[in-house]
Order: sequence, then structure tokens, then C-alpha cells
Amino acid sequence: MLQQWKETEKPQEEELSSRLKAAREKLQEQQMKVKEHKLPVLILVEGWGTAGKGHVIGQLIKNIDPRFFKVFSMKDPSEEEKRKPFLYRHFASIPEAGKFCFLDSGWMNEVMRARLYGKMEDAEYAARIESIKRFERQLTDNGYLVVKLFLHIEKKEQEKRIHHLLDAKDTRWRVSKNDQWQNEHYKTCLEAFDSYLKDTNMPQAPWYIIDAKSKKWTELQALEILTEGIEVALANNAMAVPILQNVFPMEKMPLLSEIDLDKSLEDAEYREELKSLQQRLGELHNRLYRKKVPVIIAYEGWDAAGKGGNIKRIAGALDPRGYEVHPIASPEPHEKARHYLWRFWTRLPKTGHIAIFDRTWYGRVMVERLEGFCSENDWKRAYNEINEFEKELHDWGAVIIKFWVQIDKDTQLERFNDRQNTPGKQWKITDEDWRNREKWDLYEDAVNEMIQKTSTTYAPWHILESVDKKYARIKALKIVVEELEKVL
Amino acid sequence: MLQQWKETEKPQEEELSSRLKAAREKLQEQQMKVKEHKLPVLILVEGWGTAGKGHVIGQLIKNIDPRFFKVFSMKDPSEEEKRKPFLYRHFASIPEAGKFCFLDSGWMNEVMRARLYGKMEDAEYAARIESIKRFERQLTDNGYLVVKLFLHIEKKEQEKRIHHLLDAKDTRWRVSKNDQWQNEHYKTCLEAFDSYLKDTNMPQAPWYIIDAKSKKWTELQALEILTEGIEVALANNAMAVPILQNVFPMEKMPLLSEIDLDKSLEDAEYREELKSLQQRLGELHNRLYRKKVPVIIAYEGWDAAGKGGNIKRIAGALDPRGYEVHPIASPEPHEKARHYLWRFWTRLPKTGHIAIFDRTWYGRVMVERLEGFCSENDWKRAYNEINEFEKELHDWGAVIIKFWVQIDKDTQLERFNDRQNTPGKQWKITDEDWRNREKWDLYEDAVNEMIQKTSTTYAPWHILESVDKKYARIKALKIVVEELEKVL
Repeated sequence: MLQQWKETEKPQEEELSSRLKAAREKLQEQQMKVKEHKLPVLILVEGWGTAGKGHVIGQLIKNIDPRFFKVFSMKDPSEEEKRKPFLYRHFASIPEAGKFCFLDSGWMNEVMRARLYGKMEDAEYAARIESIKRFERQLTDNGYLVVKLFLHIEKKEQEKRIHHLLDAKDTRWRVSKNDQWQNEHYKTCLEAFDSYLKDTNMPQAPWYIIDAKSKKWTELQALEILTEGIEVALANNAMAVPILQNVFPMEKMPLLSEIDLDKSLEDAEYREELKSLQQRLGELHNRLYRKKVPVIIAYEGWDAAGKGGNIKRIAGALDPRGYEVHPIASPEPHEKARHYLWRFWTRLPKTGHIAIFDRTWYGRVMVERLEGFCSENDWKRAYNEINEFEKELHDWGAVIIKFWVQIDKDTQLERFNDRQNTPGKQWKITDEDWRNREKWDLYEDAVNEMIQKTSTTYAPWHILESVDKKYARIKALKIVVEELEKVL
Repeated sequence: MLQQWKETEKPQEEELSSRLKAAREKLQEQQMKVKEHKLPVLILVEGWGTAGKGHVIGQLIKNIDPRFFKVFSMKDPSEEEKRKPFLYRHFASIPEAGKFCFLDSGWMNEVMRARLYGKMEDAEYAARIESIKRFERQLTDNGYLVVKLFLHIEKKEQEKRIHHLLDAKDTRWRVSKNDQWQNEHYKTCLEAFDSYLKDTNMPQAPWYIIDAKSKKWTELQALEILTEGIEVALANNAMAVPILQNVFPMEKMPLLSEIDLDKSLEDAEYREELKSLQQRLGELHNRLYRKKVPVIIAYEGWDAAGKGGNIKRIAGALDPRGYEVHPIASPEPHEKARHYLWRFWTRLPKTGHIAIFDRTWYGRVMVERLEGFCSENDWKRAYNEINEFEKELHDWGAVIIKFWVQIDKDTQLERFNDRQNTPGKQWKITDEDWRNREKWDLYEDAVNEMIQKTSTTYAPWHILESVDKKYARIKALKIVVEELEKVL
């Protein structure tokens, strides 16, 4: 794409000014429609060093109310960010519904630097491209407008700009080592950029190459592409997208009705096992901290199945500095306004830490599905989106352990009644619990489908038979210990 | 994709039967909705030899009224088809709105055979992939549902099937040399197929790999993918899609208002030039016939600008066996029911022939745009779609000559009045001509935009100043002669 690129014909001054005026006004008008339609707009500005990425963003945002946009400048990842998966900080910076987010370079820049400085082999590059394509597709599939601009200047122009900036004391600091390195290795960079643009040029999130030789012309091109993109996106309400085939290796799982719930444990055996497993887990926690392995433990299960007590037995064995429990309720407004996986991406543990989720991203294919909080297309698509999410975590090196805490309908009724009738437990039972109980069969179907479709070999579900809570706790501890031993 | 593939878990017989029943009923119900919503559905069935492509199509169509579908079996291109561009026969077989079209292998098979038999180098393969991605994107962008299935069987299974077929006299003929070659070179084929699937796996037209070991299970997978795809497509009405950036090299063109229309030619000079140019063109026609160069001459221009007389002077110099004039009126119902470029794809000349179009595919960005026959998103997207179309023709080796026949508004009025007042010419003037004339300024803007956005270096517009028709005819002849001389 870049290699065939030819300098554009910049319009005459008069035409340029009148088109600029029109485009600026259009963006000003569109910002309210973007808000009304709850359209999230992500503008990724990539390009050569000194091409004027910051300047063009500065011009674009002049037309938008400051409450409606954010600007993120790509920096080297912090020590904290280096301990998160590659996409973590990029996913974290996606806009809310109805708002704009401008990225002064982002994931392209990050990958290109590593690639050009010889720190990324072909296989890793191919994996990154795959991650990026999935990430961008997940955004557009979920209603995001993703506008990708590449600001292009030729070698001589870049050289001129670098010299110009270096010549003056005040501007010297603006020339980075990377800018100079790019200019010295212009052809190599050009080829690498060209490959990247081709590899990630998708119909729903295409690349636009911008001739960045003149500031006003750059601004006009960016404005016209952005406003046209918004126009197209506003025309599409709740678009359905194809349900992709599963490409991940799956494990064979039983149906819930096939689970034998008669399993139980004697008190004495329970206490003994609990003690030794918790001790073993404590030791393993130290080792995974030193070896910097991140661990994600996800709990789902019926109301009153015993998730809380189960989590307590795991957490009780861990060093409090190295784990966190995330209770997941219905999303806050700022969470609801973003991709449904956003609140999980931003809660990921860093390497060496354990995150325990009490309810999870699987809400999408259970409560959101059954209560109509998302469209049919949304939840049908979510199995693959979730498998992709967990694949990212797995490739990053995370251990992922998913528990479904299983009881039967009668046991739930007993426990509900017990809660209702015991003054100290009444806070634990709500009208919603009773309403959910009425939909038991629908939930059972949804859970079966979820377990069948998301038990990948790298993140399979484990069923905890929890009519006897003691049995379930010991089984959970054993599985966690086993899974950690595999990687330590 | 294929290389990571693992055999699927075939459902138990009972589940299989009940899901088959449900999926068949669903498709039967959907066929009427497909018709009502005017959804065109293209199902491409690719896969290994003996995987059962024909069988699965046979099963699928049992659920559809015979008036609503067509089946095309891929054969080696005929001698006629070999003289058309690569995409010609594939474009020709796209379904009408509201109908199904099943392809028993298609463009994938064609490319893979050439590739595997060593008849296609890397560069040509890359160009084909690009063409195919554009072709499929043009279909989905224009509201087509494109379902791509790959029927997969393992080497041993294929071997078993081949032997089984060869063993019986009645079935021996069904094993092709290609089937046997594939089995002998299974790994090479697997790698090539895998690359192709990855290269053409687009979010809007994704690949689905089908485990084709068992017939019923194959049918069920295909049915479920197809019905789900239809469901998603039916949910989307008149979806707008991103306007892609121009990636083709452009020529700088004047605005219509900048054209000097005072050019004229003396009678004597006209007659002399006409004679010598026509003679020269006749000679060139013979040479391009022998060298098998296809030529496409496209005429657009104002009503009464003199297109007809101009075309007559070109055609008059040609051997009638080697050219065809296509007058383009508003589309017939069966043409309107397909992609707007379909009626031009199917009218392409074969190599060595000349096709002259009296009005063209540019109707999309003129009359269809101004009369609201297509959406804004449709015509805005069309510039790129047309540049892509002409790029295909250019890469095939065609000479493309596009004429805009230009007059001013006063001249048009004179000629209209002359037609109105001359009994023998009255058939040439209609109410519609007068109505179009009222929209002169809107048309002028549209024509300017068209000329700016579609004057690629490989297919630029030529303006014919036609206030003096003689001047315009000689200029057209000169351009045709020049362009042909360049390639002969």
C-alpha cells in the first residue's frame, strides 16, 4: 500500500480553506449525533516520526466538546503495563459509547518498534497480527467505529523536518532517537510499515494513508475521512455480524444433567485435606510469584451453590499481597458504555499475581442472554469472543481455571429457605434470586451451551459438585494445585 | 486454519436426527424470507476431492423451492471463457436478489489447481488473492450473503473413498485424476489450502471448515451454518459500509468548466483525417485480433452531445466480426436484481475483440446517484468499486478508453430545439431529456466528481469537445489509434 503510494494533489488554497471550513462544521454537528446514537469512535493515528500526528489530533479535537473526547499518547509501557498482556493497555483505552478517543499512535507503533529493532521474530509478529485483527474485529463487531490513519511523509521531507527541529534549541527535544533511526533506515521501515498495513487492512476497519506533507492538507484529509466514517457508522443501527466458526481446540464436556451430585466427604477427611492442600497452595503461590506466572480463577454457578465459601478456602491459602478477588455485579454505567470485556481486561492480574473472579465475563451468555440485555447476535458471537479473550491470556502465559459450581434445583430451594428463615442470612437472599430460580431450565440450557462452546483445551471448565460443599472445596483446591504444578 | 484442525465430535444419532430435522425446517421457512427481503445468497462449497461437495449441495437444495435456486458445477473454463478475465465466469454466476446460488467449487478450486500444478507463480497468486478478496468484499458490501464452506477429510479417509469408488465399475468414473493427485500430495495440498483459507478469511465472508467424514453430520453442519448466516443477513437492512481510500494511481484532470469548447475543424480537413484515421484503425483492428488484445471503449456524455455519431465513426472502421456495440439503457429486472456491475461483466469482449459501450457502469455515480436509485453509501462506494473493476480488466490485458463527450448548455438547447422541430429527429428527444436538462448543474457536479475520482492511469477519461462534432470524432479516432498503437 505504502510502496505504491504517490504524492497527492493538494487542492488550491481557496478550495482547501472552503473544504476545511465545511469539514470542521460537519464534525461539530456530528458530535451530538455521535452522543445521541451512543456511537463509540476510536481514531488511531499512526505514521512516521515528525509526520505531525500530535498536530493533526490537536486540530481535530478543536471541533469537539472537551467532555466528549480523550487523547492518549503512546508511551513505552510502564513496569506495571509490562506485566500485563500485550492488548491490555490498548483495550483499556477504548472509548465509551457516544465518545471519541484519539490515539497518538498505539498497537501498530508498539509492534513496529519491536519488529524493526530486531526484538520480534516472525512467529511472534504473526501472532501479534492475529491478536490485532481479532481486537479490531471485536470492536467493529460490537458497534465501534475504528478509524485508522497512517500519516505518510517521504524520506527527504522527514530529514528536513528533523534538521529543522534540531536546529533550534526550543524544539531539539522533540526529535526522538526513533525518529532519527527511522530516517536512517527509511527503506526498511517503509517495507515493514507496508506489510503491517496490508496485514491489518480489513474491510470494516480499513487503513487510510494520509499525505502529511502540508499541515492543512493533512488536517483536511483526516477530517474528511473521519466525518465520512461517522456518517456511515451512524447509518447502521445494531448491525448483526457473522457468527464465526470455532477455531480453538475443545475438550469434550458432559451435560449438567449427567453430573453425579452424590459425591461427599467426611468431616475428618475434609479437614485433613483442606489443611494439606492449603499449605501446598501457599507454597505454590510463592513460586508462581517468583516465576511471574499470572493466574486467573473464574467462578460461575447457581445462586446459593456455595461460590463464596469455595473462594474463601482458596483465598485463605494465599498471601494477601499476591491476589485479588473481584466480585462482579451488574456493570456500572461507565462499564456498560464500553465493550463488555472491557471491565475484565482492566481487572487482569499482573504477572505473578492471582485474580479470582466471583462471576465473570460469562454473564454475556447467561444473564445478558436470558434477560435480553444484549441481542441474539451479540451473545451468539460472544462464545468466540470469549475464546479469543482467553486465548490472549493463555498466550501471555496465564493459567486459567474456570469453575462451574453445580447443585440441583431441590438443594437450591433448601438453601434459599434456610437463608429466608435464618435472621443472620436474610441479606443473602433477594427477590431476584427467586425470579432467576423460575428460569432454571432456561439457565440450564444456556449453561450447557456455554460449557460446550467454551471448554477450550487451554481454558476448560471444571465442574464442582457442590451439594456437599466440603467436597466441592477440596475438589477446587486440588484442581488449582494441579494446574499450578503443571506450569511451575 | 486447516493445519490446526481437529476432528469434531459427531453428535449421537438421536441428537443428529432431531437437529437435522430442525435445521431443514428452518431453511424451508427462511426461503420465503430470503425472497421477501430480496437477499441474494451465494453458497460456495469447496473442499477435497471425494469429500462430498455434490452430495451436500443435493441435500441442501431439497429444502428449497426449485424456482429459488441454481447450482453451478465448476468445470475447466471453456475456450470462450479462457478469453475472458479470471473473474468473468464467477461474476456471471452470482445469484439474483432473493435467490440462492450453490457453487460446487469455484474460484478457490481454480486458483488452487493452477497453484498446485506449478502453473501459478507467487506474484500471480498474490494478485489472484487480491482480486478474490475484492470480489467477495464487493458482494458483501452490496448486500450479498456469501457463505464459504470447506469440506475437509483426512488423507486416509480420502484414500479409502477413492479405492472404494475405483473398486466398482459404476463409480469408477467419479474418481478424477485430480482426486488421486491430491491424495498422493496430501500434505502439499493441505498447506496450500490452509494458506488460501487464511488469506481469504474476511470477517464479512468468513470460512467455515466442515468435518466431512460422515454424510449426515456434514449436512447438519452445512445447514446450521447456512441458516445462521441467513438469520444474520436478514437482520441487516441496507447496511452502510466504509468508503475505502483510493489506492490506484490517478491522473490529474480538468473540471468541465475549464474545457475550451471553441475547438473546431474545417470540412475538408475533417474528411481527409477521417479517411486516414479510419484506415489506420482498420489495420490496427486486424493486429489486435491476431495479438488477442481485448479493447473496451466507453462513452458517456450529455444528451445530444453527439455520442451516437461519434461511435458510428469508430465502428465504421472496424471489421463487424470483431466488435460489438452495447447500448446501455436502464437495467432489465433480472439485471437490477444483481450487483450493478453484473450486466457489464457479462458483456465483456473476449480477447482480440472490441466492445463499445454507449453509456456505461458510470450510471451508478450519475443517474442512479441523482435520481436516488441507490443509496448515498452505494454511489460513494462505487468510485472505488469501478476502479477495482477496471483494474481487473487492465490486469487481464485490456485497453480501456473512456470518453466524456462535452458540450455546453446552450448547444444542448439548440440541438434539443432542432430535434423537436425536425420531423425526422423527433424520436430522438423525450420528456426525460428535458427533465435531465433541468438538473444540468447537479449533473455537472457529479460528472466532475466522477472524472476526478476514476481517472486512473490505467483507465483515464478523455474529454471530447463536441460543440463541433467533427472535431470530437477526429479526436476520438486519434485517441483510439494512439492507445492501440501503444500496445501493438
